[in-house]
Amino acid sequence: MSILDIITKKRDKKNLTKEEIDFFIKGYTNNEITDYQAAALIMAIFINGMTDEELYNLTFSMANSGEILDLSEFGENVVDKHSTGGVGDKVSIVLLPIIASFGIPVAKMSGRGLGFTGGTVDKLESIPGYNTSISIEEFKQNVHKTGISMIGQTLNLAPADKKIYSLRDSISCVDDVSLIASSIMSKKIAAGANKIVLEVTYGKGAFMKNIEDARVLANKMETLGKYANLDVESVFTPMDEPLGYAIGNTLEIIEAINFLKNISIPDDLKNAVLEIGSKMIKLAGKGDDLEKIKNEIIEKIESGKAFDKFKEMVQTQGGDISYLEDVNKFEKAKYIIDIKADKSGTIKEINAENIGKLACYLGAGRIKKEDKIDMSVGIIIHKKVGEIINNGEILATIHLNDISKKDIAIETIKHIIKVD
Amino acid sequence: MSILDIITKKRDKKNLTKEEIDFFIKGYTNNEITDYQAAALIMAIFINGMTDEELYNLTFSMANSGEILDLSEFGENVVDKHSTGGVGDKVSIVLLPIIASFGIPVAKMSGRGLGFTGGTVDKLESIPGYNTSISIEEFKQNVHKTGISMIGQTLNLAPADKKIYSLRDSISCVDDVSLIASSIMSKKIAAGANKIVLEVTYGKGAFMKNIEDARVLANKMETLGKYANLDVESVFTPMDEPLGYAIGNTLEIIEAINFLKNISIPDDLKNAVLEIGSKMIKLAGKGDDLEKIKNEIIEKIESGKAFDKFKEMVQTQGGDISYLEDVNKFEKAKYIIDIKADKSGTIKEINAENIGKLACYLGAGRIKKEDKIDMSVGIIIHKKVGEIINNGEILATIHLNDISKKDIAIETIKHIIKVD
Repeated sequence: MSILDIITKKRDKKNLTKEEIDFFIKGYTNNEITDYQAAALIMAIFINGMTDEELYNLTFSMANSGEILDLSEFGENVVDKHSTGGVGDKVSIVLLPIIASFGIPVAKMSGRGLGFTGGTVDKLESIPGYNTSISIEEFKQNVHKTGISMIGQTLNLAPADKKIYSLRDSISCVDDVSLIASSIMSKKIAAGANKIVLEVTYGKGAFMKNIEDARVLANKMETLGKYANLDVESVFTPMDEPLGYAIGNTLEIIEAINFLKNISIPDDLKNAVLEIGSKMIKLAGKGDDLEKIKNEIIEKIESGKAFDKFKEMVQTQGGDISYLEDVNKFEKAKYIIDIKADKSGTIKEINAENIGKLACYLGAGRIKKEDKIDMSVGIIIHKKVGEIINNGEILATIHLNDISKKDIAIETIKHIIKVD
Repeated sequence: MSILDIITKKRDKKNLTKEEIDFFIKGYTNNEITDYQAAALIMAIFINGMTDEELYNLTFSMANSGEILDLSEFGENVVDKHSTGGVGDKVSIVLLPIIASFGIPVAKMSGRGLGFTGGTVDKLESIPGYNTSISIEEFKQNVHKTGISMIGQTLNLAPADKKIYSLRDSISCVDDVSLIASSIMSKKIAAGANKIVLEVTYGKGAFMKNIEDARVLANKMETLGKYANLDVESVFTPMDEPLGYAIGNTLEIIEAINFLKNISIPDDLKNAVLEIGSKMIKLAGKGDDLEKIKNEIIEKIESGKAFDKFKEMVQTQGGDISYLEDVNKFEKAKYIIDIKADKSGTIKEINAENIGKLACYLGAGRIKKEDKIDMSVGIIIHKKVGEIINNGEILATIHLNDISKKDIAIETIKHIIKVD
């Protein structure tokens, strides 16, 4: 078998065998196959497509290119969620303690933020002391002890996917539903859960720009899930404006804490938590009636059980729970600037992607993987799309540490939040 | 403009502008665009194709990526030939002195051999003293003085083509008629002639396996020629068996000398010389009637004028012409072994590619660009396809210096020359 023969086959629109796909994935992971050969093959795959069977073999091969998280000791009902991403997305932080409060084991590895989307791990690390890079043994012990642990990707999960994703990014082969589905599912297979709810976001702040494309992607991921013997269900979430009101690591953690404490619950965030959460709980075998489960979720919040589970997780993970009890303890940005509306009207648009980019500019995110992030900076929006605002009312609040960024930030916010 | 946008366009089967193609060629030649980005674009071009206009822009851009040989001082009728390659191909060495003997200027840069095909420059260098790497000034002076000079590629002609060809080779994107045509014509445009005869070979020893494919390639090259304001005509030569009887550098030079001295003229070589030569002479405005021109060519050989021109060129180029006068002076290989037929019958096949590979194995060619070649080794075949051979008659003679290769060489020859 040779990589040239494999490239030729796909170039000529023929189907690749499992052995050929394995040969490519292994060779590329080991640097025996060059970037330019991989680039040629991926372009051929992009243009000529793959059957579902080929795509599953690709997915499975990428999943097996590194370590596999074995969660079988937690039984048949290990649930996971995955979101195709959004701005202001703190669903995992709010939802997973709720799931754990149902007695369903949660062993979750999350990613860091890159580009305009933040990462759950970065947000958790804004809690002083919270350690996201503990050993796998400790991680599993924590799940046994408290029913939940949320950490970073300490295992080398699906390294082939990481390498191929980065290559796709530099050869304009990212926006292909099959390759996106394969990339996501390879990581999910390696992450060890057997029941997965996929939140497929769509709209201006998401990769899929409309619900039709989101459905196609969900369909592809469910097909791959079936091949892998995983229970997979999808939820569709609009992502035109940011989720909730807070964008930025500490600001989002505070919003999540206030949600779990039942102090303030943004409608869109609540909706996402109920939709995804009810399906996860159903998949875990803790009920059949989604509406009934949603009520039980609300009960977990109102009774404080969800917040208690969150505190328990943070404490076990080394975090200082006094910050959870009093969110005023979180270190604030040096400059907190209210931006007022200069006319009355209705909020017509808050482009999530652009808000994400502004947060990134302020220091909340990374442009390159090596960048350090600034926990305290970010943006609070005060009105959501469709709400009415009066001239002089606060439109948004900017939290920043570098005062030289103030003017651009104010201008940008006024440009992003469209009032008419 | 960005390479990602260019890749995206071709990926989506859109046409690239001249500016976009120039951006790619310049960027790739300067190493600003990576191999993997170029690989992705070339695969997209391979699969999605290019219009003739795009292909011409690619060709012209590659031609202009390095130095251009300016031959305008030699007037409007500078003719050139190009062959898509063959085994035992000494047509240029025989034909170009003939062309020069008609008073038509010949300023020819040739390549070295690689793989199973030999190179004109290597063959010329088997004449002691012959210098193929003189300066461009000296090259032009020689053409003014004797009407002919044949040298190696001392100019950096079409380096983008060289880089892209080598990339295509390692991503399985060689066998595309458009890209082959573009590669050849970029070098021809840079090589400065304005009237070109293309010899398109086909068969087992050629890149194009049948005449239909050869015609498609010729057509594409003629189209590109028109765009470039070049007079281009094609000649089709079958290349199932080697051209002539000799394969190997010194052996081929001796065959060429004996041809020009009218001592022994293999039919197939004569045919190629007359077909290509008559068209070149017609393009140069020295006649209209191809049959009449062919007779004039034969007259140039019979009168010794062609051989005199060859001697004049060799002498001007520093070569020792006493070798031309007495070919026995050429250094011979240490071992010269006749291989006899072990049955009577007709020669059914002499696979040219396999003979070329055997010559390469004996040391006559290069596997890698850096390999040194052995001038004296090679193969003489004694019968051509269709001829009758008797049991015990000599089938072929092997010239070799490394006796350890003898047994394999003999076995291989018996396998290649099929008698039935």
